[in-house]
Amino acid sequence: MNKAPGVVHLVGAGPGAPDLITLRAARLLAQADIVFYDALVHPDTLALAERAEKIAVGKRCGKHSTLQRFINKRLIDAARKHAVVVRLKGGDPMLFGRAQEEIDALRAAGIRCEVVPGVTAALAASAELQISLTRRGMSRNVTFVTPRVGAGEEASDWIKSICNADTAVMYMAAGQSSAIAAKLIDSGLTADVPVVIVENASLPGMRQTATTLGELQDTTECLTHGGPALLMIGRVFAQAKSAEHPLVDQAVVQEAVAAALSA
Amino acid sequence: MNKAPGVVHLVGAGPGAPDLITLRAARLLAQADIVFYDALVHPDTLALAERAEKIAVGKRCGKHSTLQRFINKRLIDAARKHAVVVRLKGGDPMLFGRAQEEIDALRAAGIRCEVVPGVTAALAASAELQISLTRRGMSRNVTFVTPRVGAGEEASDWIKSICNADTAVMYMAAGQSSAIAAKLIDSGLTADVPVVIVENASLPGMRQTATTLGELQDTTECLTHGGPALLMIGRVFAQAKSAEHPLVDQAVVQEAVAAALSA
Repeated sequence: MNKAPGVVHLVGAGPGAPDLITLRAARLLAQADIVFYDALVHPDTLALAERAEKIAVGKRCGKHSTLQRFINKRLIDAARKHAVVVRLKGGDPMLFGRAQEEIDALRAAGIRCEVVPGVTAALAASAELQISLTRRGMSRNVTFVTPRVGAGEEASDWIKSICNADTAVMYMAAGQSSAIAAKLIDSGLTADVPVVIVENASLPGMRQTATTLGELQDTTECLTHGGPALLMIGRVFAQAKSAEHPLVDQAVVQEAVAAALSA
Repeated sequence: MNKAPGVVHLVGAGPGAPDLITLRAARLLAQADIVFYDALVHPDTLALAERAEKIAVGKRCGKHSTLQRFINKRLIDAARKHAVVVRLKGGDPMLFGRAQEEIDALRAAGIRCEVVPGVTAALAASAELQISLTRRGMSRNVTFVTPRVGAGEEASDWIKSICNADTAVMYMAAGQSSAIAAKLIDSGLTADVPVVIVENASLPGMRQTATTLGELQDTTECLTHGGPALLMIGRVFAQAKSAEHPLVDQAVVQEAVAAALSA
């Protein structure tokens, strides 16, 4: 029991499609002894971890700090038993992924930790929409933000960051989209600012809804269907259209995953 | 000569390390008939395109609009000859990659186009620093921005976006870092705001310089050595340290690339 502890790899699983994971992440999964994975990780991504024990530590929206402490402890315990521990997170670990708590806990326990970046959902959505987040002549900056509607004085920070950005992408926001639109219009954005809501970016069930802040404010029905969704705002989205489509060629996805598995 | 045109894939090559490309991108490179690549793409990434004709269309900072029109034309011509055309761009195509001009030109010519997202440099830098861009309790948003120092009234937009963000990452900025720091302090940020400059994120020659806005304003020497660099600003970077280090395990990189090539 005195052997050196293993390494914990905090790995971005990418936006959803299993072939949008990095080569490094795929190799680490193939080598992993144990994988702790989030709720939104695709089964075909998990399948890359052929020889690993796989443990769901599902939580969405990062609300459960007790659960977070429990995850930290499990990662430390796993590193004391296994050489290659993978903590697999949807998207990129360092963007709204609560990676820092895990990194800090591992460091405090003397466990080595590495972070493997991933493709974040906003970039996958932009790719599928074929709309650049920083279209030349229209947008020179983009902000990624999690809004917090009705949370007192701290709430104003997210509004300022959006109102002062050329393009804004909100994560974990679609459920509050009407209230968010109202806040942004109250804060000076005009009702005609284009909005597109993208659900399940990069997955066959991807759905995009093009609208404006004004329409969104008046929309009482829920515009998403339970999948992870982004609220994207800015002039660049004026050309976005509503659509529901299997944009992803599943044969290509399967082939890439099979190749990675057999490599 | 009447066969249907091919597909042009605008592909993100990721931040630099060849194993931080996606599985989808690696498969497309392996299938490509012809690849047009940017100056910053790693040779081992290009090597994934085993059977393709490889054409450098190097430009940095996207300054040459004549060159951009020339690239557009070459992509269209290539799609009329080849089934699989890859346009390989550093980082992610939709973030400061001028992908939109190419997408629009291809559409106008009736050529089908697909975009494959990539890991953007800011996320690779965050991973190597092991500092989350959205550390809980400290940052709920991050802005990605290209500054434009001394470009008249339009210049103020980038300053506003940074001053109203919890965390900011500037691309293509390191060469003007002293002037940028001065502008931000003039605009109300305090001199003690932490800054880290990350050059060659994810590559063996990665270098990180931790400083503050005040120090940066007074620094006349150039803090980078010609590699692509990010200027990262915000409270989350208070724990950053200066370092010059081969953080990347080259053996692991080589193994992943070899596996992808043989798949």
